[in-house]
Order: sequence, then C-alpha cells, then structure tokens
Amino acid sequence: MATTPLDLDRPREECGVLGVSLASGDVASTAFFGLYALQHRGQEAAGLAVSDGRAVRIHKGMGLVPQVFDAASMAPLKGSLAIGHTRYSTTGANSERNVQPYVVETMHGPLGVAHNGNLTNADSLREALLARGAGLQSSSDSEVLALMLAGTEGATWEERLATVMGEWVGAYCLVVIAGTKVVATRDPWGFRPLSVGKLPGGGHAVASETGALETIGCTDMREVRPGEVIVLQGGLLRSHQPIQPKAQARCTFEHIYFSRPDAHWDGMSVHEVRQNLGRALAEEHPVPADVVIPVPDSSTPAAIGLARASGISYNEGFVKNRYIGRTFIEPTDELRRQGVALKFNTLEENLRGKRVIMVDDSIVRGTTSGPLVKMVRDAGATEVHVRITCPPIAHPCFFGVDMGTYDELIAHHLTPDEIAAHIGADSVGFLSVDAMMGALERDEGYCNACFTGAYPVPVQLELATTKQRFDGVLA
Amino acid sequence: MATTPLDLDRPREECGVLGVSLASGDVASTAFFGLYALQHRGQEAAGLAVSDGRAVRIHKGMGLVPQVFDAASMAPLKGSLAIGHTRYSTTGANSERNVQPYVVETMHGPLGVAHNGNLTNADSLREALLARGAGLQSSSDSEVLALMLAGTEGATWEERLATVMGEWVGAYCLVVIAGTKVVATRDPWGFRPLSVGKLPGGGHAVASETGALETIGCTDMREVRPGEVIVLQGGLLRSHQPIQPKAQARCTFEHIYFSRPDAHWDGMSVHEVRQNLGRALAEEHPVPADVVIPVPDSSTPAAIGLARASGISYNEGFVKNRYIGRTFIEPTDELRRQGVALKFNTLEENLRGKRVIMVDDSIVRGTTSGPLVKMVRDAGATEVHVRITCPPIAHPCFFGVDMGTYDELIAHHLTPDEIAAHIGADSVGFLSVDAMMGALERDEGYCNACFTGAYPVPVQLELATTKQRFDGVLA
Amino acid sequence: MATTPLDLDRPREECGVLGVSLASGDVASTAFFGLYALQHRGQEAAGLAVSDGRAVRIHKGMGLVPQVFDAASMAPLKGSLAIGHTRYSTTGANSERNVQPYVVETMHGPLGVAHNGNLTNADSLREALLARGAGLQSSSDSEVLALMLAGTEGATWEERLATVMGEWVGAYCLVVIAGTKVVATRDPWGFRPLSVGKLPGGGHAVASETGALETIGCTDMREVRPGEVIVLQGGLLRSHQPIQPKAQARCTFEHIYFSRPDAHWDGMSVHEVRQNLGRALAEEHPVPADVVIPVPDSSTPAAIGLARASGISYNEGFVKNRYIGRTFIEPTDELRRQGVALKFNTLEENLRGKRVIMVDDSIVRGTTSGPLVKMVRDAGATEVHVRITCPPIAHPCFFGVDMGTYDELIAHHLTPDEIAAHIGADSVGFLSVDAMMGALERDEGYCNACFTGAYPVPVQLELATTKQRFDGVLA
Amino acid sequence: MATTPLDLDRPREECGVLGVSLASGDVASTAFFGLYALQHRGQEAAGLAVSDGRAVRIHKGMGLVPQVFDAASMAPLKGSLAIGHTRYSTTGANSERNVQPYVVETMHGPLGVAHNGNLTNADSLREALLARGAGLQSSSDSEVLALMLAGTEGATWEERLATVMGEWVGAYCLVVIAGTKVVATRDPWGFRPLSVGKLPGGGHAVASETGALETIGCTDMREVRPGEVIVLQGGLLRSHQPIQPKAQARCTFEHIYFSRPDAHWDGMSVHEVRQNLGRALAEEHPVPADVVIPVPDSSTPAAIGLARASGISYNEGFVKNRYIGRTFIEPTDELRRQGVALKFNTLEENLRGKRVIMVDDSIVRGTTSGPLVKMVRDAGATEVHVRITCPPIAHPCFFGVDMGTYDELIAHHLTPDEIAAHIGADSVGFLSVDAMMGALERDEGYCNACFTGAYPVPVQLELATTKQRFDGVLA
Repeated sequence: MATTPLDLDRPREECGVLGVSLASGDVASTAFFGLYALQHRGQEAAGLAVSDGRAVRIHKGMGLVPQVFDAASMAPLKGSLAIGHTRYSTTGANSERNVQPYVVETMHGPLGVAHNGNLTNADSLREALLARGAGLQSSSDSEVLALMLAGTEGATWEERLATVMGEWVGAYCLVVIAGTKVVATRDPWGFRPLSVGKLPGGGHAVASETGALETIGCTDMREVRPGEVIVLQGGLLRSHQPIQPKAQARCTFEHIYFSRPDAHWDGMSVHEVRQNLGRALAEEHPVPADVVIPVPDSSTPAAIGLARASGISYNEGFVKNRYIGRTFIEPTDELRRQGVALKFNTLEENLRGKRVIMVDDSIVRGTTSGPLVKMVRDAGATEVHVRITCPPIAHPCFFGVDMGTYDELIAHHLTPDEIAAHIGADSVGFLSVDAMMGALERDEGYCNACFTGAYPVPVQLELATTKQRFDGVLA
Repeated sequence: MATTPLDLDRPREECGVLGVSLASGDVASTAFFGLYALQHRGQEAAGLAVSDGRAVRIHKGMGLVPQVFDAASMAPLKGSLAIGHTRYSTTGANSERNVQPYVVETMHGPLGVAHNGNLTNADSLREALLARGAGLQSSSDSEVLALMLAGTEGATWEERLATVMGEWVGAYCLVVIAGTKVVATRDPWGFRPLSVGKLPGGGHAVASETGALETIGCTDMREVRPGEVIVLQGGLLRSHQPIQPKAQARCTFEHIYFSRPDAHWDGMSVHEVRQNLGRALAEEHPVPADVVIPVPDSSTPAAIGLARASGISYNEGFVKNRYIGRTFIEPTDELRRQGVALKFNTLEENLRGKRVIMVDDSIVRGTTSGPLVKMVRDAGATEVHVRITCPPIAHPCFFGVDMGTYDELIAHHLTPDEIAAHIGADSVGFLSVDAMMGALERDEGYCNACFTGAYPVPVQLELATTKQRFDGVLA
Repeated sequence: MATTPLDLDRPREECGVLGVSLASGDVASTAFFGLYALQHRGQEAAGLAVSDGRAVRIHKGMGLVPQVFDAASMAPLKGSLAIGHTRYSTTGANSERNVQPYVVETMHGPLGVAHNGNLTNADSLREALLARGAGLQSSSDSEVLALMLAGTEGATWEERLATVMGEWVGAYCLVVIAGTKVVATRDPWGFRPLSVGKLPGGGHAVASETGALETIGCTDMREVRPGEVIVLQGGLLRSHQPIQPKAQARCTFEHIYFSRPDAHWDGMSVHEVRQNLGRALAEEHPVPADVVIPVPDSSTPAAIGLARASGISYNEGFVKNRYIGRTFIEPTDELRRQGVALKFNTLEENLRGKRVIMVDDSIVRGTTSGPLVKMVRDAGATEVHVRITCPPIAHPCFFGVDMGTYDELIAHHLTPDEIAAHIGADSVGFLSVDAMMGALERDEGYCNACFTGAYPVPVQLELATTKQRFDGVLA
Repeated sequence: MATTPLDLDRPREECGVLGVSLASGDVASTAFFGLYALQHRGQEAAGLAVSDGRAVRIHKGMGLVPQVFDAASMAPLKGSLAIGHTRYSTTGANSERNVQPYVVETMHGPLGVAHNGNLTNADSLREALLARGAGLQSSSDSEVLALMLAGTEGATWEERLATVMGEWVGAYCLVVIAGTKVVATRDPWGFRPLSVGKLPGGGHAVASETGALETIGCTDMREVRPGEVIVLQGGLLRSHQPIQPKAQARCTFEHIYFSRPDAHWDGMSVHEVRQNLGRALAEEHPVPADVVIPVPDSSTPAAIGLARASGISYNEGFVKNRYIGRTFIEPTDELRRQGVALKFNTLEENLRGKRVIMVDDSIVRGTTSGPLVKMVRDAGATEVHVRITCPPIAHPCFFGVDMGTYDELIAHHLTPDEIAAHIGADSVGFLSVDAMMGALERDEGYCNACFTGAYPVPVQLELATTKQRFDGVLA
C-alpha cells in the first residue's frame, strides 16, 4: 500500500566457508551443493578449489553459486578434497582479485585457503610480509594468511598452521587444502561458527553452518572448538589443539540474523533461539495489540514466539518480492515519492484498523524502519509498535561484520525513544543484553561489542583506512 | 534433516502483462518496476515496448527482469506509453523467438502486443492466417493475435480489436501499444486476471495483478471486466464493451497458487482467501495434531488459517533455500540417496515427537510430496497429515496453465487414499470443490475444469501437437 | 611515418549468399566453410538455415562467421540442405532483427530465404503487403521476398518463385530453402554475381563467388544465368528460365573491388581483370616515376599490372595493421594531430627520394586518399601520383551497394584535377569507362551507373526514406 | 584450387611490450593505440597498467586488444604513466592467471611489470623465491621478476632493477611501472628488440618494435641498448647502464618473420632485410622459372627481392582468407579429402603451365608446405621450387620462441633433399647462415642457435617440465 527503499539496512557479514574430504571418489558435486547452502552468507562471489592429492584445481568467479558453476566449469575439478567459499557483496567495482579460495605454489607444494572473518592485526601482518620482500596482489586477509603459511617452516601443514596461528588476532575460520589433506581451524576466541560432520559415504566435511552439512547428508555434527585444528585426510579425521581457547567471544549476531534458522550452534537451534527472542520481547516490552507481524523472512520465528507468549494473534503483514537481486535499477526519489515500492507490499486486510506489533531483527542505520512503519500505517494500522530482537547497535564490528561506522549507526546518536520518533513508530522496544542472553540460555561466551563497545580483543579503529588505500592503489 | 528433489511439482502459468500510459514524461522506469512486481508470473523472459506516439522501441530478452534490463538498454525507450511482459519458463532451448512483446509494422502503423493466456482455437486461426498468405515466425499465440489485428479493417485499434475478439476463443489478457494509445482487453470469460488503476502523477496502468499496480503507486484500482476494452491515451481512460461477458470462468488457481498474496481479485484478497482455505481444511479434514506447518512460501497463509481454526499450534517446519534459480546443476540420484537436499531443510526441534499437519497448495504429479513427508518423518514426527488447499487435479488445463497431461496427473490415476499411501502420509485431505468455493465466498463464476473436467469452452485435446510440430520445424 | 584515419572510404556491399544440397549426409560443416569464404562480403552478421527435408533449423547472429558459429550452435543443424548469408556492417545499433536467413511458416510449410541485392520497388511491394494485412517485423527486403513467396499460389516453390519474380525490380540473388529443395535465382538483369558448382561427394552448391565454391571443393562451376532458377534436390540439379534475361547490367565494382581476386565471373578472372586495369592505367595516365605501390590489399594486382606495363619498379610502400576490426576505439582528432596512425605505416626506405605512383581502387568520399598521400610525402617521396582503377564515382547506387549520397560523393562536386589538389597529389588519374571496359574485355552488359548516372532500371531517389522511418519506428 | 590445413606451421613468439610516460595528461588512449600496433606479437591476451603517480590501475583480459578494451574499461585508467603487454596464443585453457601486466603491492609501494622473453634460469629463481617463503600464483616469469624486485633493497626502482638483473639469465625486455616512473630494460645479450622514442606532445615511449612507436607519433627513435635501463619520468628520460653488454645475441627470427616489415632494428629496415634475403636466395639457389610467388603475407618482400635479382616475373599465386581467427571449427579430414580449403585459394591463371618459385620464410614442422605445393601443382604449375629465407631450423629455442621440440622439427630429422621429397617440391633451397647474415649485413651479434645449436647462454633442456607441472598443479 505504500513504499520502502530497497536497502534493507542490515548488518552484513563476510563469507561462508566449506571443506570436504571424501574417503574416495570425486567431491566436486558434493562441495557444490554444500556451497549452495551457504549462499545466504555471501552473494557476491563463489569459488571451489579441488585436489586429487597432487594438483589443486580452482574455479571461482563473481555471482551466485549457480551462476559461477556449471557442468563445464566443474568437469576439470577432479579429486576427493575440496574447499569452498561464498563472499559477501561489497561495494567497489573491481573486487574480482579478492575472490576466494586463494591458491599459491609454495616451497611445500600447492596451497589453497579460504576464510571467514577479519584479523584485527592484519595491517601489521601485511607490513611484516612486505618488509620480508613479499608482493601482495589483493587486499584480502586470505592472501596474508596464505603467504604466512607459505613462508613458515614445519613438517606438516598442521604444524605450520599452529605456528602462525599464534600471530593471528581476531576472527578467522580458515579452511586449507594442501597435499593430501583439508585442514580447518577456528580462532581461539570462537568468533565465527564452524562445524564438522561425517559424510554418509565416508569422509567428513566442515562448514560455517550445520545446515550446509545437513544439505550434503552429514550426521554426527559438532562444533569445531575455538583454537582446534581439524585434519581431514581420506576418510579420516584428526584433531589438534595447538592453541588453548581464549575467553569465548561468539558472535551473537549469528543467532540474531546471519545464520539460517536450521543452524545449530553452541548447542542451540537458531530457530529456537529466535522464538525465544520473541518471547523475551513479549516480557520486556509488553504492549496491547491486535496482531504481531514479522518483517520477513528472518524475523518470522521471533514474531511467532512473541505472538505465542503474548497471546496476540500472529499474521503476515508484508508480501516480499522474492526476486530482488544484486544488480538493480533502483527507483529515483521522484518515483519513490510517487509510491514506487519494490521489496515489500502490505496485506491491508491484516492491518486495517489494528494495533500492530512489527518484529524486526535489528536497526542499523535506521533507513528501512521508517518506510516500513509508514507502509503499515498507510495500510490502516491504528498503532505501530516496533520490537527489535537485539539491543541497540551502537558500535562498529571489527571481526568481519560490516555494521557501518560510528557516524552511520543511528543508535550511536539517538535513544530508543528518539528512534521511535525518527521512524514514526508509537513505540520501539529493543531487547536488553541480559534478556537477549537469556534467550540464548547463556550468561557469557559471546561477543556483544556492537551493543556494548566492550571489544574482546584490542581493535585498531583506523583499520578500514589501509584497505581502502590499497584497493585504490590497485583498483 | 533429510532430502527433497528440486522440482516443486506445481502448476505452471504463462505470463504477466502490463500496460502504462502516463499523462506526460517517460514511462520506462515506471514500467520496469511494474514488470518487476510481475516477476513471479514468469522468470524465463521479459520485455518492454515503449512508444512516444510515433516510434515503438522494444527491448526484450531471456532472463529475469533485472537481468534483461539495465540503464543502457532502457535509455533508448523514450515515450509515455508502454506495454510489458514476463514469460514463464518453458522447456525447449530455442524459445527466444517467442519472447514478448511482439512488434510489427502494419498498414495502420506500428503495433505491439503482449498477452497472457491460451486460445483454444489457435490452430484454426493459424491455418486461416497461413491460407491468407501470411508467414508466421513463431509458435506464439501473440503473433496470431497481432497478425489478425494487422489485417483487420477499422478506423481505430479498438474497433479492430472489437472485430477480431469475436473470433478468439479461450483465455487472453491482451495489451496493445499502437499510435498514441495503450489498449487492453480481457476475454469475455474472464479466465485470467487483469486490473486497472490510476497513477499518482496522471495516467493509468493495467496489470495482471493489483500488487504490480500498487508497486508503481496506483490507486482507484478495479478489475478490467470480461470482454471490456480499456483505452489509455495520455492521462485519459476510456472503456468499451464490444463483447458481452460470457458465463464467467475465472481461474480458481490464481487464488490457490499463482497470484501473489497481496493481489485482490474478484473483490477478494488472495491472502484472505488462502487463510479461508486453511480454515475450510480444518473443518473438512479435521485431525488431532500437535503442530501445523506450511510448505513455504505459498501455503503459509492457509497453514495459519488452519491453525487458528483448529486451535493447533502454528510453526515453521521447513527452511527454504531462497537462492534456487533457473539454471542449475541438480544432484545425481546417488547424491540424493546420500542425503543431498537442496530446496528444504527441516527444523527438527519443531517436529520431533510431534503429530504434524503439513499444508500444501496442490499435488500435480506427486513427485514432491513424498520426499517432503519423508523429511518430516526423518526429523522425528510421529504422524504426518497432508492437507491440500484444493481438490485433486485430474484434468489438464487448456487456458494457459501447464498442469501436465492426463498421464502425468497423479489424481487421474489414484484416489486420495492411494495418494496418501504413495507419498507415505498418514492421511491426505483435499478440499472439496464446494468447500473451496466457500472459501472464495462464491457459488459460481470460476473455471474448475482441472478438478472437474467441465471445460467452460470446447477444447481441442490435440492442441499441444501443432505447437510442438511448429517448434520442431523452426527449432 | 605519418597518419591516416581508420575509415577506408570504400563502397560497401551488402551480403554474400550460399545454398548447398548434398546427395546425402549432414551439410552444416560444408556450409560453414563456404560461408566463411564469403566473409569479406559481410562482417556484421551471419546465419545458416539447415533442413532435413522436414524441419528447418536456423542459427544466426551478429559477428564474424567463426564468432557466430561454434560446435554447440552447429550440432542441432541436421540435414543435407542449407542456405547461408553474410551481412555487411551497417550503421544503427539494433539491426539484429534484420539478420538473415529469414525463416517463416507458410501455408506450404516452412520457408527460409537469404538474399543479396536491393529491390528498387521495395517500397511499393511493402505497401502492397501491408495493405493485404501483413505484419512486417523488419526493414529487410528479405522479409518482403519471403512473405510474397508465402502468399503466392502455385504447385511448387519454383512455380511460386516464377510468379513473384515478375513483380521484383532491381538486384537480387536469392537462395530459398523449403521442403526437400534449395532453390536459387538471380535477377534478370544479372546485377550481382551467383555461381553454381558440383560437389565432389555428390550434390551441388550455389554461392556469390566461385572462390567460396572452390573452398568447399566444387568443380564444374558456371554462372547462374540472369533470370534462371536453379533447383537443388538431393544430388540433382534442375534449371528453369521462367523470366527471360533483360539487358545485362552486371556490377562492374565486383571486378574493381568487391570480389576476392580468386573469383571468376563473366568468364574472367577477377585477379586478371585487376592486372589489366593496372595496365590500362599505365596507358591512359602515363607518368615518369621510380616506384609503383599499391594501397593494400585490393589494389595489389593492379599495381603489379601497372608496374609491368610501364616498366617502373613495383614495391610495397605501406604496411597494414591486419587486426583492424569492427568495434573500435578511434583516435581523437588531437591524437591524430599528434600523429597516431592506425591502419597503415609507411616503408620509408622504399619511398624516400622517389617519384611514387600510388594505385588505389576507388575514391568515394575522398577522406582516405589525402592522409595516404601525406604519409607517402612524409616518408620522403618527391612526387605522388595517384592512379585509380575506375572512373570517378559521381552517382549513388540503388542496387545494394552503399556508395553514399550525391552530397557525399567527392566526384559529384570536384573534377579530377580539383581532387588532386584536394588530396595533395601531384596528379590523379582515373580510368575512363572505355578503358575500364577494355580491361574487362567487354563492350557492354555491365551497370556503370555509379560512374555515368545511366541507371539500367528506373530508381526511386527517395528510396532510403521509408527504411529509415521503419527502423526508427521499430528501433 | 585445392586444399591446405589451417595451421601455418610457423615459429611462435611470446609477447610485445610497451611503456609510455607523457609530460602531462592522460596516457590511456596513446597506450591503447601503441598496444594495438603490437597486436601481431600476441593475440591471446592484452593488458594495460596505468598510474597517476600514486595508484596503479589495471585492465587486462583474454582476446585481441580491441576486444579487451572499450571506452568503459579504459575510463578508470587515469594518469600519464602506462605499461602494456600483448600475449601470444598458447595452448591450455586456463591461462588467464598468466595475463600481463602483473601488479603487486610491495614494501616500496605498488609495482607493475610486463615482459617479453624467457629466462633460462627461471626454475632456480622460482625455487629460491619459494625457499624464501614466497607464494607464487602463476607459472609466469613475470611474477618471478616482480617478486624479486619486490624483495630487493635499494633506494630507487632502477637501483633494485640493477641488483636483480645480475641474477637473470636469458631473454628479457622488461617494462616496469612504479612510483612516478616507467622503467624499461633489455637483457645484456639483447635477445629481443626494444626501442625508445620521443612523443610529439612531450614524454617518451618504449616498445618492442619501432612501428608501434611510429603509430603513436614518435620521432628520434633508437634501440634500447643491451643491459641499459631507461627511466621515464614526466617528460624526462634518463639512461643507466648497470650491466655491461655481453656478447650480442639478437634473435635473427625477428628479421625473418616476427617483426612487422616497418620495424627498424639494429640499424636495418626489416622490409629491406627481407628483400635482401630474397636476393640472397636468388644467388644461392638459382633455378630457371616463369614466376616467383610469395606465401602471403610475410614472404612478399623476399619474393619481390628474389624476382628482381633473378629477373623472373613476380606475381601473386595465393589468395588468403584474411578472417582466419583464433577460435575456429577446423575441417574434418573427410572434408579436407573432399577439398575443403580454408586459408588459401590459388590464382590459377598465374600458375597454369608455369615453373613456379614459391618463397616462404621458414619450415618448422613441415606440415604446411606439402599442401601448399600440392595446391600450386593442382593449379597447373609444371614445376614447384620452394625457397626458404633462412637455414633449416634444427634446434629448439629457449629464449621465448615456441619452435617446438627436437622431435617436432622436421629439419632435425631430414636433409633439405628429403624435405623436398616429403613436401612434393621439385627442389627446396634454404639460405645458408652466411648468406642470411649477409642479407643482414652483419657478421656476428645474432643468436642463430635454432639453426646451429650454438646457444649463447647455457640452457636447461628440461626447462618446459617445471612449468607444465606447475600449470597442472594450479590448473
């Protein structure tokens, strides 16, 4: 019934990773389907590196997984070992050189790496590599990780990994393909998720989410422990713990928004956590209303949870255009003023004359919520109460999530009441950190820095600068 | 937790149509966004023809709307008149020549047409054209419609349209661009939907669904009447009724599945109809259960409706991979046996130990339901009861929907109980025709031939044959 | 040593045509190689239509022959009958709809046509078709020819062709694929070349030039007679003469420039004719000089001929960049002023201190000759005498060659001496019509209208207008 | 008149290089046109790196220069410094990673390199880099050169270059872009050509051939001396000679075949050298004949020279299809047996009944000459005498030319008389090394190793092996 801008105003994560070792046979198809189930973690680019134990063959490109791969491009990917990567859409035209996996020849033979996360000391690691005489071809942390591995002594890749892990600070889930092995590791803080499971035909897989493991038929799934190194070789799995876990700092936002609801992480079902978050909202921010609606799709479980806990009826209030894609002609301001709406239409019959609770998972820059509230009012709602399944995001993330800068974060500037006024809602309710952690059934072990500003490792606030310079230099 | 084939086993419709006339200014962007909101009606191809009253310029191609159009391809589309088309994905490699709109030079000047539907007498109309000496370049009904219009005498395009409409039998929603007008018409039986609305800046638009009209800001929307001819010229709208409506034969499946839930048709909200269908299922096929789950996304409103009417809890049971696209590497049987699942994963915590009602909108060939039921059982459900929001589909459609042939339709061969056994469900409940019509709050005026075999106009059962021959001839 | 603009300032012809019928087996590869040997007659687009006697399958597209066809696009082209077409590069972005062959379904079955030439009464034929109720999708004469054939009664395609040929005025070499036959014809004036030969494995081929027939192994080649209809069916060839030849009007420019030098036409070798033209220049415009150089490549035989006849030494004076293609970033005027030269460099050691005779085949707009003369002078030549192997082109062509309009033709405005001054040459010598015809060893039977203005059939000087309007209309 | 295989059986060189520094303004267009004039040295890939003194921006890709670059891809290439590269077509699908220029971030800032040649100690240099901990992403020598430069200490790029040049053995013409300079160097043996000139608007350019310098308007051209380092900065040129020239080893084949005839090298015009080679053939292998024909295009000057010296008439005997491209459907053996000829047709009237001298520039594998001789005989020649403008090629090249292996070289296995019998010629005459050097007017200073086996620097016969392994590893 009214209009909304295209930009969904969400936090943005960088990447999904995958590693597979079959007991025998070719792995490419299995890896493709696993990658496909990680598509929601990155729509800009995708890649697979496959090895038969001698040669590492790679195919990668810009676009969605099924755009990057077809039968012809997969045919040469022979072998039973694979790593894969999906990359989040970033701005900047020429990001092709940053697509992963990243493969190099080293003194120990060919090496491929893919990773999810962000090192907070990447700048000093880059400088150290350059000072050693290296030439860097991209602005990607992956190249830094790979070249550090390439230049380290050690009898095996897991030994070399143990050596360099000691120098890495920040978030990294890394998968490595080299020799006859796939090696995977997760940083000692456990920022980003990584799980491992057993394949029905023999062999194992690691992936950012359990849903991807399930998609390729895995059973016996468990989380990779912080600081753990998993070595997959043929049908075998070995585990090392070269670095002891630090104070745990899992990313709460995986539960709030990033992970698919079928993911299990830290012993919890993400779908269940989201229903809990809805229940917590009902308790912490009760309000009389006639209907609870989600902003589809990620807020649906929370809206169901809130509806159940409050006894208020659940229904759909928005219809989403499911074909919104990456490259797009956006409506001009003039067209928007005339009411051109792209992403959502409202279901007027579910809203007219009603007091509406609209459940959403976050407010980052605050540009989306206002138009959505206006649409609901234009459809005839008498009251619109916004409920957000997390606290106000008031601090940037330095561990691989693009939240925006301090300047861009609306909660850095406005109180919840001011935000309500800004977006035209009758009320806005954010969950408290405690209530949110209650929904996760955890007291600690999570990074809530974007809410609290308490970063679990030291961060360089100027981090983005170097990368921008470099991208400019090699644009 | 388990597996399902990619093919969704749904009826397939052909096409969405759009026509716009602005009071002034360039229409291309508006038409683009309107077309985009009809994307769900056709993902194979898209096209726009735009006129400044003298020259008709066209751009069309295979692919989704934002793949076909970019700033460069839209720049030449100057003028305030436009028609557009989205085309359903059909089999056959070389269907490029059939992409619409279809533009020809005629004795009355340039003419562009786009249509949704299927003429049941297309074969004899083609033969008549060929006998007159015409050369046909495609197997599309649109070319037949256009050449009949091109060869008809009459002072205006609406007059010529009135003349040839008398010869057309079957389903057609037609938009025409010619001279200084956009002309739109709907067949006298009213098979397919077509609505018209007023644009905020002056001018009007017609489209297959009201959601597309809303997307571009329309108000004062109403259905185009069966047999009505709408003439849009600058900011003016004129209506003619050259042919009296026949006995109404609206397609029930628009309510069941095709239309987006924000569509309003025949005075009803499609979303509301679907909730009613769920309620009717609760009454007609009650069963004790612990949870009601939809097969997302189209069955969600019905599942909510069923849950409310029965008092059984609603929840999500499936997670859908939203990136399933047109071109795709499908898993091999071997991979499927190993458990590779692409389109859906289950949410085990919502299903384990529960008696589940799974709501879906149709069973056509019966290939999808079995794997879905198995996934739900594998996730730990103790009972699975399938509820379908329409009657068994036992007859082909000849009015523009690809249901499959008699041989392919499972309900042509099996009873509901046999279907339950076939798909492994504890029970299957189809709505009766009466209950379905009750949910629509109508007694008559709909085509239910796919359920009943009572076709509202005579059909040629050999229809498909000619087209296949022709496609072969010009493949 | 200096500079020249890219534009070669040559007359431009439209198209090469090919038709093949094998006694047995698949014809696609043979047709591909034949088409490839006609590449110089059209670099904009190419197409093949192949038939197995029942279905006509077509592949065509913009680009050079090997860009349009690859193994995948040729695989479906099954059957022993083929027609093909190469199209000349024309201005205007959206000429894709005009690419040939053109295939339609008719009351007599599928019909494909391709043609080379230009009808001088195309406008009135178009009007007549439109008045009959036809819808025309392109501005191509081929569609007019095809639709006239489609709408004509007659027991066989050769009968229908005989009927409509009576209505066609102007230049046409037409190849038709329909039923179990390839049918070819040449207009009764014989404007454009068409020859037929016998294939070594059984069957026959027709093509615009004998070189293409040789390329696919033909023997027993002869010209198709003006007004003759050739019917190829399996391994058989039948000939009809439904229309008596008119006064012959072969295009002299085929000898001067268009045909490849290995072509034989009208009993003459084109290479030999060109050497004769050089000899004639030596006689008609003698001048003392030290070296004779050609503007490569088409003027090389004439330069050799002139050198031999005059006793002056032959040598190369220009080096040509052989990679000049269709899509191209042209140098700015500023770069040209700075000396950026693309197409030619000079061989200074062959020019310095010498009196040079520079042989070229034509001067159309006069934009190329000046920069070439300047380059030769800059390389140190003391005198530059330009010799042209034909008379001044002072009149447009209406039979399929794009010479330009009266306004554009330099010889319509300037005398040879004025042209010499304009291009900075010490002298310019054009061949007289008589001397040119002497080199061809013919007194008559040729169209020299571009030199003399004596058109062999009436022409509509406004011809271009309708086409431009139509292209605008459907742009 | 008959047939020939497509493969031209020529030596193949790798690459052309270009470097430009303007006094002011943007260099991209100038660099594009210079690169275009080096197209004949590499048709597989092309690239430009452009710098404004701070950021180095690069665009490169597979294909011909005008396919790789268009206005959109050139627009971001801002700045007055550029280096460029054209790459020869090699076998192997995935050579995209090897396309030059190669750009890296180093401790001294961004660095881009492009080179022509082949290091004979590349393997040990690679091993040394890997042992130092480097990761290599390609099999290209350019990456080795770049990483060695990146890892070397020194105050300026010319100092660093001087340091590492001492370690490089073999052929290299290298252009470097870094900081505010373009730096170019040529190996101390002077294997491959490199020249420098002055641009009319201020600034200088270096390029593999003088013809490319002329194309962009250069004057005051001279060769870059072996071991010389040229530094271009704004409008200034400075020269260093960090390494003294070794015994000169220019590639004779640049004169014989590679360079465009407008090149000047070692004080000689290539066109003139080729005419001299023809004269030398007339003296060393005289034979009575009626006509001298070249195999077009590279042998034309030699054929003219031979004709003049012998007094035998010069004429064209072959017509070449100028559209033969890189990707191509080749005729089957069956089609070849039937006479399908692609690259050449003969001009029968110049050959019939005549004793023919056919001049060609080399015989490598011997697969082309036989079919050409047969074509000439089929056209009616009574005798065919083949004359080759160089000695028999009996040894592989290790300095950047793909001659083939010992096994593949026909002259490694057969004497000239045996070769004559093999190709069906009445006689074959190769130039002696002395006569060839006489045509160059030089006694020494050239590498004739492919004729004599006397390599000017030590070579590793197993060189190719490592590269193949590496390409397999990262395929």
